[in-house]
Amino acid sequence: MVEGMAESTDVTTPAADPAATPPRGYDDDKTAYLNRLARIEGQVRGLRRMVEQDEYCIDVLTQVSATTAALRSVALGLLEDHLSHCVVDAAAKGGPEAQLKVDEATAAIRRLVKS
Amino acid sequence: MVEGMAESTDVTTPAADPAATPPRGYDDDKTAYLNRLARIEGQVRGLRRMVEQDEYCIDVLTQVSATTAALRSVALGLLEDHLSHCVVDAAAKGGPEAQLKVDEATAAIRRLVKS
Amino acid sequence: MVEGMAESTDVTTPAADPAATPPRGYDDDKTAYLNRLARIEGQVRGLRRMVEQDEYCIDVLTQVSATTAALRSVALGLLEDHLSHCVVDAAAKGGPEAQLKVDEATAAIRRLVKS
Amino acid sequence: MVEGMAESTDVTTPAADPAATPPRGYDDDKTAYLNRLARIEGQVRGLRRMVEQDEYCIDVLTQVSATTAALRSVALGLLEDHLSHCVVDAAAKGGPEAQLKVDEATAAIRRLVKS
Repeated sequence: MVEGMAESTDVTTPAADPAATPPRGYDDDKTAYLNRLARIEGQVRGLRRMVEQDEYCIDVLTQVSATTAALRSVALGLLEDHLSHCVVDAAAKGGPEAQLKVDEATAAIRRLVKS
Repeated sequence: MVEGMAESTDVTTPAADPAATPPRGYDDDKTAYLNRLARIEGQVRGLRRMVEQDEYCIDVLTQVSATTAALRSVALGLLEDHLSHCVVDAAAKGGPEAQLKVDEATAAIRRLVKS
Repeated sequence: MVEGMAESTDVTTPAADPAATPPRGYDDDKTAYLNRLARIEGQVRGLRRMVEQDEYCIDVLTQVSATTAALRSVALGLLEDHLSHCVVDAAAKGGPEAQLKVDEATAAIRRLVKS
Repeated sequence: MVEGMAESTDVTTPAADPAATPPRGYDDDKTAYLNRLARIEGQVRGLRRMVEQDEYCIDVLTQVSATTAALRSVALGLLEDHLSHCVVDAAAKGGPEAQLKVDEATAAIRRLVKS
């Protein structure tokens, strides 16, 4: 879970070979998502520092809410990309795949709303 | 925002001097909160790795929801500690401070619910 | 907004003429949705009665949460039906309509998550 | 659950006797809460009518979100009143009651956030 950058750079290699990993719904915005997640990681690190420094509970809570909202926004973006690409593509092809994709997306929305 | 561990260790120094920083509502559970936040930081790092590796949108979304739920749970814990200590103490002392603390807490709950 | 049952019965007339109103995503479960909404209306009426009778704040809050959860569940059902029918049908037909439907659905999910 | 107005009026009788029912946290705003809940009841009735009339899924969803937001706002108001009165009063009196009230309020916040 806490591996460093070197490995992370490593693992992007398969993406250079489209056969190995199919493009994902979020593919066009991949760099933007990586930047947003790096920023969120920084926000969580900032939260730890606030607790270490005994900052005021309400100030910590404000930053937790900001971080949660940033994660929620990433989730909504991923979901939109998924519907636009994966669900629409499956529906265009026809067959039972489309309903499977919709069920999967609905379950994800349910988890998102309850989280 | 993305400073390293050295500085984080540095900034805990004031905590050694209780006069400089008053105890916070979350003081008793400080180590537990730091551990939980470290785990959440690892979850966000894991999210970045998933996007780098082009993992399936729905799998990424599942992990985003798990991370959001973990953050939400930290927020509820901090809020409970805040009500138990800061709000109750202010109310016990009497005076206008109690209402100020309640207003502050309510605003925090509002942000939490909307985030 | 607060019209009685007579009118409500009236307005279902167009449904008898399928040409006038196209079937909706929730069409198959229409009766179930109407029953669920009638139950939610009863829950809100119960909330008013609790406030009228000065019931304990926390008990009122518990019922508000139950009512919110019931509404949220109706929303998730409607959304699932919408994705399964309206979005999938538009995608199967092809053309720009599919993306419009996805944008619309995403905006609805966004409102749902923030509400 | 679906009793009419006559009974609702009936049940307010105890309120005329303050000894029978202690004042609640929301007491000062009781009329405002009753009006807001009556409006929400009308919104739910409007939702039923929309489904009966086969209105477009997304339009129904928009109204569900508006209704959920209105209920959520009532909940936040009740919670604030509860903290300002019941929790603060218990804390001012001292004793174990304050912690019980905080626990109860925290459980309510938890249900609210998850609903």
